[in-house]
Amino acid sequence: MNAVNVRPLAYLIIGVAACGSPRLRDARDIAASLATDVGPRLAGSPGDHAAVAWAERTMRELGLSNVHTEPVMVPVWRRGVEKAELVESHQGLAVTALGWSGPTPEEGIVADVVEVGSLEALAQMPKDAVAGKIVFANVVMPRTDDGHGYGKTVPVRLFGPKAAMDAGAAAFVVRSLSTSTDHDPHAGSTALREVANPIAAGALATADADLLHATLARGAPVKMKLVLRPERGPDAPSANVVGEVPGAKKPDEVVLLGAHLDSWDLARGAIDDGAGCGIVLQAARVIAARHRPSRTVRVVLFAAEENSVAGAKAYAAVHAPEVDKIILAMEADSGTDRARYVKLLGDPAKAAAFERIAHGLERLGIARADGDARPGTDVAPLVALGVPTIEVRQDATRYFDIHHSALDTPDKLDADALAQVSSAFAEIALGVADLDGDLGRVPEAKRKAE
Amino acid sequence: MNAVNVRPLAYLIIGVAACGSPRLRDARDIAASLATDVGPRLAGSPGDHAAVAWAERTMRELGLSNVHTEPVMVPVWRRGVEKAELVESHQGLAVTALGWSGPTPEEGIVADVVEVGSLEALAQMPKDAVAGKIVFANVVMPRTDDGHGYGKTVPVRLFGPKAAMDAGAAAFVVRSLSTSTDHDPHAGSTALREVANPIAAGALATADADLLHATLARGAPVKMKLVLRPERGPDAPSANVVGEVPGAKKPDEVVLLGAHLDSWDLARGAIDDGAGCGIVLQAARVIAARHRPSRTVRVVLFAAEENSVAGAKAYAAVHAPEVDKIILAMEADSGTDRARYVKLLGDPAKAAAFERIAHGLERLGIARADGDARPGTDVAPLVALGVPTIEVRQDATRYFDIHHSALDTPDKLDADALAQVSSAFAEIALGVADLDGDLGRVPEAKRKAE
Repeated sequence: MNAVNVRPLAYLIIGVAACGSPRLRDARDIAASLATDVGPRLAGSPGDHAAVAWAERTMRELGLSNVHTEPVMVPVWRRGVEKAELVESHQGLAVTALGWSGPTPEEGIVADVVEVGSLEALAQMPKDAVAGKIVFANVVMPRTDDGHGYGKTVPVRLFGPKAAMDAGAAAFVVRSLSTSTDHDPHAGSTALREVANPIAAGALATADADLLHATLARGAPVKMKLVLRPERGPDAPSANVVGEVPGAKKPDEVVLLGAHLDSWDLARGAIDDGAGCGIVLQAARVIAARHRPSRTVRVVLFAAEENSVAGAKAYAAVHAPEVDKIILAMEADSGTDRARYVKLLGDPAKAAAFERIAHGLERLGIARADGDARPGTDVAPLVALGVPTIEVRQDATRYFDIHHSALDTPDKLDADALAQVSSAFAEIALGVADLDGDLGRVPEAKRKAE
Repeated sequence: MNAVNVRPLAYLIIGVAACGSPRLRDARDIAASLATDVGPRLAGSPGDHAAVAWAERTMRELGLSNVHTEPVMVPVWRRGVEKAELVESHQGLAVTALGWSGPTPEEGIVADVVEVGSLEALAQMPKDAVAGKIVFANVVMPRTDDGHGYGKTVPVRLFGPKAAMDAGAAAFVVRSLSTSTDHDPHAGSTALREVANPIAAGALATADADLLHATLARGAPVKMKLVLRPERGPDAPSANVVGEVPGAKKPDEVVLLGAHLDSWDLARGAIDDGAGCGIVLQAARVIAARHRPSRTVRVVLFAAEENSVAGAKAYAAVHAPEVDKIILAMEADSGTDRARYVKLLGDPAKAAAFERIAHGLERLGIARADGDARPGTDVAPLVALGVPTIEVRQDATRYFDIHHSALDTPDKLDADALAQVSSAFAEIALGVADLDGDLGRVPEAKRKAE
């Protein structure tokens, strides 16, 4: 990566106060409106439907064209009563059910807790040490600036429940994947969706994971009472919401800017992913107000990223026939902090065009990094079909303090940083939309979904 | 106040690793044990009874003498179901009932919200603007280093509910008295205890108070559904817990070090007031292990500070006959940060003795400040009877980020700062216990309870 230390003032010109709406001045305002006026919006919930209506209304207000919804059926999982308590000391623990957790009986379960430090440790436990117990996976997520601490620990949440179930555990609780010590559990999905009659799986707030660890360290057996009563519903209608800045010369060729409209039910979704919605909508608004791109710039706000990626999968399936016309697909789903560098995943033979565009980002304090871009979750199905992507890597140092928790509220939004990121999206989108050539296709060997 | 900038190393010698118990090495360990092994302990609850047992056991373990409980009846108020929602947007708000709140009907109440910025503004509202509404008192607590931001805003929580009730409001919610923006409501008491059939009164998390404010700022009426189902119970037994370092020469004369054993039910009570318990217990332990004070040094861990001050009031009433033998009463109830200065409230003619003792604290980085000490809540009933007090003022800058909320967990404890404060308590207690004279009595004009 090239180190770049230019003082980034230029984005203020392009990113802030660019356009008319006094209600929504910038990317932050757009994100704050979604988090405030809609709030939590898990796929298939009333909040999800309100979010779809918000997105259509807001796209029109921001001056986009061809605003429409593309219906998609999403799987439904709803949180119910949730409660955890240490039986001996009567102390409550802050717990939340993980996505696709099964339910405990209504009265809950009471069982001894067994602590494990990794998936590997769980796999090596003798069966009788786990059978009938509540497995407590206590893995501390490291704070990193590029999010790889999440990549390192998320398998425990995704695959721990099934591993515990296979070992005969009565239930599974994970230390919340969070880089802060707080009293809010952090939600998240698991691989239990395809499992019949899954066990109950929850996340404990990090402060309460510490309490449980300290209590177990006393050496005596510790019993937990756990009540988690989530339920599945039939698939429900939702929608990807689409708006465009039509291309002046090649309107059927598309630069796609994506973010996801849904959020976990515990969160207002200000940073995840109100921020991303704000970034791509503001970028498109600035292009619509000031430019006439050769190709179409299309914003897609995807449905159901958090619980199933159903929206993005449906989008790629429906649009597969014209996928060669999608010249680039980018995604904003990394929170509210400043962009540090950009990477390309496309045809290496056409990297020079990307390098020219990236060079223009240096005045925003954004470097060009070597190595392949990591496709975002919602553009990954398109990348799997060969569509190139450019990754705008934001600083993730603070992102996982509040990710997927009730702490994800509008006060966390950083207007200045969001303006910088939004400007980068606008410049890249415009640069690629106006390219004489294109970025080619992703080589077969590098296409893989998710 | 004299500025003192001596590097405080000396307290390490007196405050840390002074004594035997490997389980509880210092003030932090003592506080963490109370918060971890007992946890929440509102007056009259099972946690309260566990705390009394913990205190007796711990005092003996730390080498105190004459360990005993002094029974006291405490008033009982229990939290029930609590839920708040914005009706139009279906958004939940994090709410908690304030102490002595009345209940809503089981199905809750639904009413328009009216926002006020102060008690004065509430008093000036026309009655028909308040009658039948939910009053939302949105006062932002300022961050200050001496806690006066709390003093400035706490009347809104204490007296707002009754004022709203008198104006015909259906219910009252206050912005949590917190200096942070978080998603945890901060509990606290109100003046509703003496009121018949009080209205429901709750505190909203600051992030959700911001949400409600932003929603009201759109201009349209906003309806809230509020369910708060607390209940009162009959008075229940609890106890002040007492332990001593007996005086070698004048055992019937006492230097009293107090803290409170109870906590709000939402909190583990690590900083409020596990920290204070740790400070005074560690101070007494060090004196017991290393010194033979002339007078008795007595630790009192008071019951029910949070909901009624019942323990301290009973203590002063029961011990009024021998109150002239209580030479000094001090209290630790200001969290986990370093002490900055000390103040006296006693006989001004005997201030020279205090000044000598205070001079010895300079090497801990603690100055002597002019002006009268502010009696702590639990020693105030003794001060009202003439007992002198010395205030050890700790830095309160961060205290109200977590005060009275579920955020009050052991990870917040600062071992180094608690060792400094505990050393100051030990030195003052020892200095006064060994004084040839005494600190006299508080002049009549300056005695006032609470």
